[in-house]
Amino acid sequence: MPDLQEALGRFEAALSELLRSEVLFVELIHRDLVAAGGKRIRPQLVFLASRAIGGAPFEMELALAVELLHSATLLHDDLIDDAETRRGKEAAFRRYGNAVSVLSGDFLLSRLLHVIARTGRMELVERFAEVAKALSEGEVLQFQVAALEDYSLENYEKIITAKTAVLMRLACEGVAVLKGVGGEVREALGRFGLLYGQAFQMRDDYLDLMGDPKALGKPIGGDVREGKLTLLTLKLLERFPEEVGPILRRRAREAQDLERLRALARETGVAQEVEAAIGKRVEEAVEALSPLPDTPYRRALEALARAEEVRLA
Amino acid sequence: MPDLQEALGRFEAALSELLRSEVLFVELIHRDLVAAGGKRIRPQLVFLASRAIGGAPFEMELALAVELLHSATLLHDDLIDDAETRRGKEAAFRRYGNAVSVLSGDFLLSRLLHVIARTGRMELVERFAEVAKALSEGEVLQFQVAALEDYSLENYEKIITAKTAVLMRLACEGVAVLKGVGGEVREALGRFGLLYGQAFQMRDDYLDLMGDPKALGKPIGGDVREGKLTLLTLKLLERFPEEVGPILRRRAREAQDLERLRALARETGVAQEVEAAIGKRVEEAVEALSPLPDTPYRRALEALARAEEVRLA
Repeated sequence: MPDLQEALGRFEAALSELLRSEVLFVELIHRDLVAAGGKRIRPQLVFLASRAIGGAPFEMELALAVELLHSATLLHDDLIDDAETRRGKEAAFRRYGNAVSVLSGDFLLSRLLHVIARTGRMELVERFAEVAKALSEGEVLQFQVAALEDYSLENYEKIITAKTAVLMRLACEGVAVLKGVGGEVREALGRFGLLYGQAFQMRDDYLDLMGDPKALGKPIGGDVREGKLTLLTLKLLERFPEEVGPILRRRAREAQDLERLRALARETGVAQEVEAAIGKRVEEAVEALSPLPDTPYRRALEALARAEEVRLA
Repeated sequence: MPDLQEALGRFEAALSELLRSEVLFVELIHRDLVAAGGKRIRPQLVFLASRAIGGAPFEMELALAVELLHSATLLHDDLIDDAETRRGKEAAFRRYGNAVSVLSGDFLLSRLLHVIARTGRMELVERFAEVAKALSEGEVLQFQVAALEDYSLENYEKIITAKTAVLMRLACEGVAVLKGVGGEVREALGRFGLLYGQAFQMRDDYLDLMGDPKALGKPIGGDVREGKLTLLTLKLLERFPEEVGPILRRRAREAQDLERLRALARETGVAQEVEAAIGKRVEEAVEALSPLPDTPYRRALEALARAEEVRLA
């Protein structure tokens, strides 16, 4: 899709421009962040959603804003998760210290404020306020659930929605806000973004235990080691409390723990159940788009969602 | 000043309301933060500046926004400075872990976005974007200057301006933005806020080495131990490079180092020079207010500035 490629090219240039700083250390970490790239899923959502409704003003600002909020969250998460690696690279904070990670995240947030101001749309400021609130509450909730071992399906849905799906929703629905489009088109985009975001996080969580470390570029089992709730471990815990409970409580510290969880999941059909749950969420996301006209852009959004059924990294 | 007291009372109630969360851990840390209080200098600046120009709409939102940005910075600084104590209490992150400190800071920033959206003034969003950028760059610069031992008066002025004075400027000038007042009144408020903020940070830095730990409620010498540039240490370094250089390089690790710096500063007149520099900045701040009508509120702003000439904690 050449026009998507072209928009993503302009996006990279605009991002670099936005992150310029006179402070050397800020420049250094941002060159890292820009060079590291990442999949730019959220900007893709913005550009595709915009084109699916015939184009929206300030789509670039929206794309920058969602990616900045996401990147700031990653920088702060580096620290929180004590992540060994992030996108297969050394986590930023290990090289520069906590200080620069936290502050660079804050710097990104300040630039986010700047780009949304550029749109002149106060409704967008309010929507970003909601999403930023949900993101931080979602991360704290995840931490709280781990600390209190308060594992439930309800908490799982809350966490994946708050920490991932609401930002994806805004990436999609935001173009309707910018274009002043309401009604079922706006609702369709919002619903797609939300469901896609949930499926995306469910796949990420699945891969964290069941994936191939080489493909992922990081060790598996990070979530279990941090006591984080996932659909897979929740189902395993419910089905095999006597075996899985102790493994989760000791955070899979013993040598064969992770392999045992993987084998249990594969052999008892729990892995397949989670795959099916992801597939169902993807179907709902695709279905949500039905009020939109049939264009290559709508089909590209559908394809993005369907990719979650098979994603390996 | 009863109406200031009354406004500050409403401020505390509004802050509590704003920080409500369904997430238990978010609630806990904010009760801490609200209960801890602090001096609420920035809201005072807003309320006084507003009254000094005959009242401005949305002064409460501005007061909340500046305090939220300040508090978020404190939470992130807790981590950065590895602060032993903050406002005489145990730093939040020691009790709850890094995660909750960083995320609670982010939560505050999301609420900041919400309150500025409430004003409906996009210019204020843009101004907060600038200030937030300066704040994070200022903190990173401070870190960079410490890491590279790049001590100079120019860097010192940049740091105190970016990390403290620009937010104080916005607290004062923001009421003019909200009221749609330009010209010399707006400029006077901005200039006062900037100069007052610089004097405020200079006094904080002075007290960090020369203050009384009992009055401060925290150990002295934190800045020297973290390699942070202050006007006092810069002057000492310039005057006594052979004695002071090694002390700063070893971050005052040896038993008598801090006492030696204090004695040197007192006995050679360097402490008095720094006091004089603070006094000069205060006078400039007071002078900046001259275009404003002579009201009890303008006089209260002047008194706030003059307090920096004698502040002990």
